[in-house]
Amino acid sequence: MLELKLHSECIACQVQVRFKDLQRVITDESKRFSLMIKVLNLLMKEVEERGRDITPTHLGTKLFRFIKIVTGISDPYEDEKRRECINGLKLYNVLNKELKSLDVMSRVVKCIKLALIGNALDLGVAGYIPPNTQYILKESEVIKIRECDIELILKMFKKARIISFILDNTGEAVFDKLLSESVRNLKTYTIAIVKSGAFQNDITIKEAEYLELSSSFDEVLETGTDAASIFLEELTPRVKRAINESDVLISKGMANFEYLSEVDEVINKPIIYMLKAKCRPVAKELGVNVGDYVLRTKIKS
Amino acid sequence: MLELKLHSECIACQVQVRFKDLQRVITDESKRFSLMIKVLNLLMKEVEERGRDITPTHLGTKLFRFIKIVTGISDPYEDEKRRECINGLKLYNVLNKELKSLDVMSRVVKCIKLALIGNALDLGVAGYIPPNTQYILKESEVIKIRECDIELILKMFKKARIISFILDNTGEAVFDKLLSESVRNLKTYTIAIVKSGAFQNDITIKEAEYLELSSSFDEVLETGTDAASIFLEELTPRVKRAINESDVLISKGMANFEYLSEVDEVINKPIIYMLKAKCRPVAKELGVNVGDYVLRTKIKS
Repeated sequence: MLELKLHSECIACQVQVRFKDLQRVITDESKRFSLMIKVLNLLMKEVEERGRDITPTHLGTKLFRFIKIVTGISDPYEDEKRRECINGLKLYNVLNKELKSLDVMSRVVKCIKLALIGNALDLGVAGYIPPNTQYILKESEVIKIRECDIELILKMFKKARIISFILDNTGEAVFDKLLSESVRNLKTYTIAIVKSGAFQNDITIKEAEYLELSSSFDEVLETGTDAASIFLEELTPRVKRAINESDVLISKGMANFEYLSEVDEVINKPIIYMLKAKCRPVAKELGVNVGDYVLRTKIKS
Repeated sequence: MLELKLHSECIACQVQVRFKDLQRVITDESKRFSLMIKVLNLLMKEVEERGRDITPTHLGTKLFRFIKIVTGISDPYEDEKRRECINGLKLYNVLNKELKSLDVMSRVVKCIKLALIGNALDLGVAGYIPPNTQYILKESEVIKIRECDIELILKMFKKARIISFILDNTGEAVFDKLLSESVRNLKTYTIAIVKSGAFQNDITIKEAEYLELSSSFDEVLETGTDAASIFLEELTPRVKRAINESDVLISKGMANFEYLSEVDEVINKPIIYMLKAKCRPVAKELGVNVGDYVLRTKIKS
């Protein structure tokens, strides 16, 4: 069990990203200013009460929820996510055709790479500019993953009866659709877990419907929460059972990594983390450089 | 008289830039974290007391001074500024040779462009990445300044007996050296005004000596303060007199624009503002786009 502490950098990042949230939905500057001060007051209160023990994931959840309440806007990234969906589906169609020419196992391998690179599509990290889709396609040609990691994951996939995907950003979900489809060719039952309410540009049940995740996964479940990750105390019984019944969890993105690595002993399931390390604290925790793609398997606590 | 109010964006920017200050000088993360919280507490206190009436320039000055006190480091950008000096002097030598082939007036015009573009060398704006020197040289070939602005400035230069340059970033000062030299060919007496103490990567009397400003200006004066701009209540009598005796002031950069446009009625001198609008609030105030170079003349209050 690892607990990512709050870093000074996380504070600067949260302030910046929360400003971007407000900038999206509040045009009146004096109103935005007073809301910004309220957000900072809440941040300071949380840090005063809990010190560095409040994790970035929890702090982000609190602050984003607060912004939704004070602005009265339940989904500040709605338009952005719709654009991500439209672009994502175009990409999905192109990739889907290409993938059909591959044999079952090569297709899984290619889809692992795509799902990993898909995590580059993130709007929730200060100073990080997400790449365009062309870049992502190019990256999938050149990205290198260690042979032994691939072999381990293929073995896990072949053995698993049920795999749950804990999804992250909206646009990224089309890559996860492709991975799920390729895994289903191995006769594995797949479950997509998406948020019920909005957190930044993360996929919710609404975008899951728009992206027709149910045509690519055997089941699509919503968490029952709008938290940055699948906070165990907030999950629906159905999601809890799904996680419990899964043989493997696929965890997409930084927030899911941050949270799941806190609670992996409780969950006690093999987890495959797929993320791009977009900030220094997470990169440091993983022992990689900022910008690196990380595929990491946690088999036993 | 214009007063740039504090924007929500200024808060996000200050937090980010102050984090970068701490990152430069404090390697121990838990120490950095507690200092970051102290900086935020001070920021909140200032905003609570003065609301949006505390300008970005004053807030930046307060917070940077605080960082210097709590870290015990009087110049957090010392190494960075030294690098800026070394690179700047190389550039100066190259440009100086080129400029010698021009006639007096063409040389002044070219130097105005270079001094304007030089303001791109800034480390004190969140999310702004300063360009390298090659880019600056290319820009000087293509930058367009309205003919009437140039004519007006040349007229002011020819008429002026004394021109004071209120300098900004350290690296930028080599371009101001070139402008001063070209202006001195018009028999104008030039004064460089630099800070006494460190503010971000701005030039202080120490770097002024390293860059040999005294060989390019008739006089080099230090402000007596480490404020983000030439706060009138903090200036030495000599600098006050210099400003009073000048026929024209050249104001480099955003912080000097922000402050001087607050007090220009008191100063009551023709001012030539030269800056790159690196953030939205300043760009909006000037009616330009973020990234635009701005050459603006204020002749009468």
